[in-house]
Amino acid sequence: MDRIGLEELIRELATLDYRKMYNNDFLLTWEKSNDEIAATFTVAEILRGMREQDISSRVFDSGLGVSLFRDNSTRTRFSFSSACNLLGLTVQDLDEGKSQMAHGETVRETANMISFMADVIGIRDDMYIGKGNAYMRDVARAVQAGFDEGVLEQRPTLVNLQCDIDHPTQSMSDMLHIINHFGGVENLAGKKIAMSWAYSPSYGKPLSVPQGIIGLMTRFGMDVTLAHPEGYEVMAEVEEVAARQAAESGGRFTKTNSMAEAFAEADIVYPKSWAPYAAMEKRTDLYGHGDFDGIKALEQELLAENKNHMDWTCTEELMATTHNGSALYMHCLPADITGVSCENGEVEASVFDRYRVQQYKEAGYKPYIIAAMIFLSKIRNSADVLQHLMDKATARVL
Amino acid sequence: MDRIGLEELIRELATLDYRKMYNNDFLLTWEKSNDEIAATFTVAEILRGMREQDISSRVFDSGLGVSLFRDNSTRTRFSFSSACNLLGLTVQDLDEGKSQMAHGETVRETANMISFMADVIGIRDDMYIGKGNAYMRDVARAVQAGFDEGVLEQRPTLVNLQCDIDHPTQSMSDMLHIINHFGGVENLAGKKIAMSWAYSPSYGKPLSVPQGIIGLMTRFGMDVTLAHPEGYEVMAEVEEVAARQAAESGGRFTKTNSMAEAFAEADIVYPKSWAPYAAMEKRTDLYGHGDFDGIKALEQELLAENKNHMDWTCTEELMATTHNGSALYMHCLPADITGVSCENGEVEASVFDRYRVQQYKEAGYKPYIIAAMIFLSKIRNSADVLQHLMDKATARVL
Amino acid sequence: MDRIGLEELIRELATLDYRKMYNNDFLLTWEKSNDEIAATFTVAEILRGMREQDISSRVFDSGLGVSLFRDNSTRTRFSFSSACNLLGLTVQDLDEGKSQMAHGETVRETANMISFMADVIGIRDDMYIGKGNAYMRDVARAVQAGFDEGVLEQRPTLVNLQCDIDHPTQSMSDMLHIINHFGGVENLAGKKIAMSWAYSPSYGKPLSVPQGIIGLMTRFGMDVTLAHPEGYEVMAEVEEVAARQAAESGGRFTKTNSMAEAFAEADIVYPKSWAPYAAMEKRTDLYGHGDFDGIKALEQELLAENKNHMDWTCTEELMATTHNGSALYMHCLPADITGVSCENGEVEASVFDRYRVQQYKEAGYKPYIIAAMIFLSKIRNSADVLQHLMDKATARVL
Repeated sequence: MDRIGLEELIRELATLDYRKMYNNDFLLTWEKSNDEIAATFTVAEILRGMREQDISSRVFDSGLGVSLFRDNSTRTRFSFSSACNLLGLTVQDLDEGKSQMAHGETVRETANMISFMADVIGIRDDMYIGKGNAYMRDVARAVQAGFDEGVLEQRPTLVNLQCDIDHPTQSMSDMLHIINHFGGVENLAGKKIAMSWAYSPSYGKPLSVPQGIIGLMTRFGMDVTLAHPEGYEVMAEVEEVAARQAAESGGRFTKTNSMAEAFAEADIVYPKSWAPYAAMEKRTDLYGHGDFDGIKALEQELLAENKNHMDWTCTEELMATTHNGSALYMHCLPADITGVSCENGEVEASVFDRYRVQQYKEAGYKPYIIAAMIFLSKIRNSADVLQHLMDKATARVL
Repeated sequence: MDRIGLEELIRELATLDYRKMYNNDFLLTWEKSNDEIAATFTVAEILRGMREQDISSRVFDSGLGVSLFRDNSTRTRFSFSSACNLLGLTVQDLDEGKSQMAHGETVRETANMISFMADVIGIRDDMYIGKGNAYMRDVARAVQAGFDEGVLEQRPTLVNLQCDIDHPTQSMSDMLHIINHFGGVENLAGKKIAMSWAYSPSYGKPLSVPQGIIGLMTRFGMDVTLAHPEGYEVMAEVEEVAARQAAESGGRFTKTNSMAEAFAEADIVYPKSWAPYAAMEKRTDLYGHGDFDGIKALEQELLAENKNHMDWTCTEELMATTHNGSALYMHCLPADITGVSCENGEVEASVFDRYRVQQYKEAGYKPYIIAAMIFLSKIRNSADVLQHLMDKATARVL
Repeated sequence: MDRIGLEELIRELATLDYRKMYNNDFLLTWEKSNDEIAATFTVAEILRGMREQDISSRVFDSGLGVSLFRDNSTRTRFSFSSACNLLGLTVQDLDEGKSQMAHGETVRETANMISFMADVIGIRDDMYIGKGNAYMRDVARAVQAGFDEGVLEQRPTLVNLQCDIDHPTQSMSDMLHIINHFGGVENLAGKKIAMSWAYSPSYGKPLSVPQGIIGLMTRFGMDVTLAHPEGYEVMAEVEEVAARQAAESGGRFTKTNSMAEAFAEADIVYPKSWAPYAAMEKRTDLYGHGDFDGIKALEQELLAENKNHMDWTCTEELMATTHNGSALYMHCLPADITGVSCENGEVEASVFDRYRVQQYKEAGYKPYIIAAMIFLSKIRNSADVLQHLMDKATARVL
């Protein structure tokens, strides 16, 4: 994108109402207005364009982005780190293993202690149903209180890097990929997307990806189909969000227990394994009671149950039933590829390979989506400041 | 604080003699002159004020702050990291687990190897009596030799982030909190502070906090009382420092074995657990002989001994005996709170809660105190450079 | 070095042909032309001189340097981190333990996922013969493909921070030390360097140091002697490189099984332990078959075999046989010092001590060598940009 295109995008941004994003968190996409979602995509595209043109988008002369990962992670960690760096923030990991937090300390205390100079806090906490998003809200309340009480001279804003309910940085990146693939958000009405369960030899993958997808893609007039075997339901509250949004946007939200039905004439397919909600609830309970034998037993149960659905896999045959046999295949990566990373997995190797480059591009939006979320939450007049950066045109690399 | 207030502070700073702090380490508060202590507080306040006004205090265009933690830590790690970031330094952790240092390498060699581009080194080494501060001095000697021999093109300065003797970044933050709470250092003469041992169900907490407190607070004409059960003595050499300083400053330094006596009419109370010095010495010996069974036995002994003093706890009843029943309660955090983080701890929950916000503010000074120590050790004419930053007034956040 | 000296070096740099280094990796020194090697030394010296004069050499306003260490490391980690910081890059570690990479993910995928905003990738992978350098080339191919396919908006360049074949950042630092010690590259023709095996009580040290030394030092007309006990051969392909280069440069490359012969009249000695190539190959095979008992048995075998050569140690007696009894002693550190870090090691304590400062200086070149490699690979007209930095003369520290 050239300078003229970038300035056009900045003018578009200026027409959107994103004022409430300032000093606010990004926890669930469905808490954001359509303008706010559009602003996030627009800022992400502007930041990407500026970087391509070697124009610095560094708005922080100094500052900290705190990352708190309660789970291993490569790409989300790198995405957060890249986003912070792009804007001039330094990442400080809160490594709970290296900290004293086990030592009877409250969330309120920790949240304040790490926030004296924090501009933003990114949290990934997706392990237990009912816990991750609640934890983020505890942290948000604590830093708000800290700010109100004069402990913090600023309120760090939170970015949800994946919780038990939503995975907004993933679904927003996926959506931006779809928008660009189909040549604009205006071309999406009526397009069918199949968010489908798929078999994996591992158990207990988070529900936040399918929930994030149906919770976002239903806003654009699309025909969103959620497919899974019986027993692999997602959270009811997110299904309600999806149904409501589909109605509002003139789209559809359908559920089915047939992968074939979901794939039929689909424009986009997103086959991906996840754990059943009920099992994840049980797991949270077992964990709460410290019943680790129970957790192990549950895992075995889940693996056995998964095996009953090994036919839920994205084959060439299924792909042929999609619209013109050429639906856009998507995955949040890493995928379980049949014959590559496992004997039987979510997708056939030839399908995965054909869409490999597309998937890498899909993943490549994430750092910019995160940067956009940070930008809009920390910079009051984002459009003006972006135009100022364009005018100044500091080279990122000399 | 507004610009006029900040410039007033800079003029005050200019009247102090802090020349010897340049290119020098900050290891023990009592090695610093009164002017140097005052300069540290003043620079900390200036940096805090500048940040509040979004004025960048970045003095390093690039540079490294090396952190070496030999113990888990959340808040000190974040404080050091925040301080470095505020001034433009990037933190590089020397993680001894990930390093080759076990491999027969000397302190002298390691110190040089990590210092080729290091501007500052922060060390926390508080585990063994007789070791931590000595280690810091070994590192200081090594980098001085490296500089003198032409190995290092600059001499990184050291900041003591807690050792076996002193915890200067803590005691200085505590003191700045006291100064602000009482409306200025000029109001402190005669104020009574009770640094008291308190019961905790954990053993072997470092002595550096009580030692740091009596080693600093005796300089301001205050009435400093150190209270602990028999057997919980601190290092004699620090008591001597405290006594000498109290005499010089027109204050008092008193010891007692009664918590009630210490709290009576106190203006400030600091109830906190620590291990007996003699036990810590024994632990160091056992460690030196690799006697891990002995260490375990000693731990059990210490926990049992602690239990004899469960009445040493900061209750509402005790607080009522302080000056006007409203002494300032302080703690370095995290505290052992009765009924919250443990069955019986250092403080009653209602007392802790009433002073929660105060304690968070107390902790909030630490990043600025550390930044001030770094600033004064690396920037020759600190007052002039601060005024220059004020004049330039680069926004920290666009 | 003063400004005039620096500008002289920049003019020298401008006469060299280093154009192919732009957007290219630094994997093996013998893949680089003489001009490219000279340019690397020159840029390293310029960056060092600029830092000594407090002139910022920050060419990146933001950007990431990804580090991937498959082995513990202190000095290489700090050197890479220092180099990145000097140029304005932030290091993001790819900690394979904290990542999801075990999870069936390909090198191609990981390489792309970490590279969306990466300017440079530093890899250390020296554990298995036949693996490390091959892995680096896999990563290089993957990021090139990612760039060609439009996944990456730029191609990060790779720096080999040590592999199974070469250790270019070490050998280049060593060479720069030699050049400065002897007053210029023009004084090196005919100088004898003894790269000799030495006894160590540890097993399996990488071959990349001796290979790196014979693969680089043979380019300067020097008399390079490789000495080791029978069975401690290095890779034949590197010996061929050494022989070819010695012929081309008018120097010599000789092999011997006598440490005494190697040391006789040597101007430089580099006594250092390494594992036999054949044993390392066997180890790789055992590892490939998951035969950990076999690996343990092999280790015992190697330790026993090492013990047959305890007389291969750098004594004062041997040093006396070198040219004027005063050869330059070198080591990549940390060394196994007899009576210090082990009972019997690579070098006598008195020899090591006499050359301690020299060795620290030798190590001190590494951050600048790495920075030079990054600079030349990312900045198209390096000489012009360096002159621009000199003209701008931004202070590194205010």
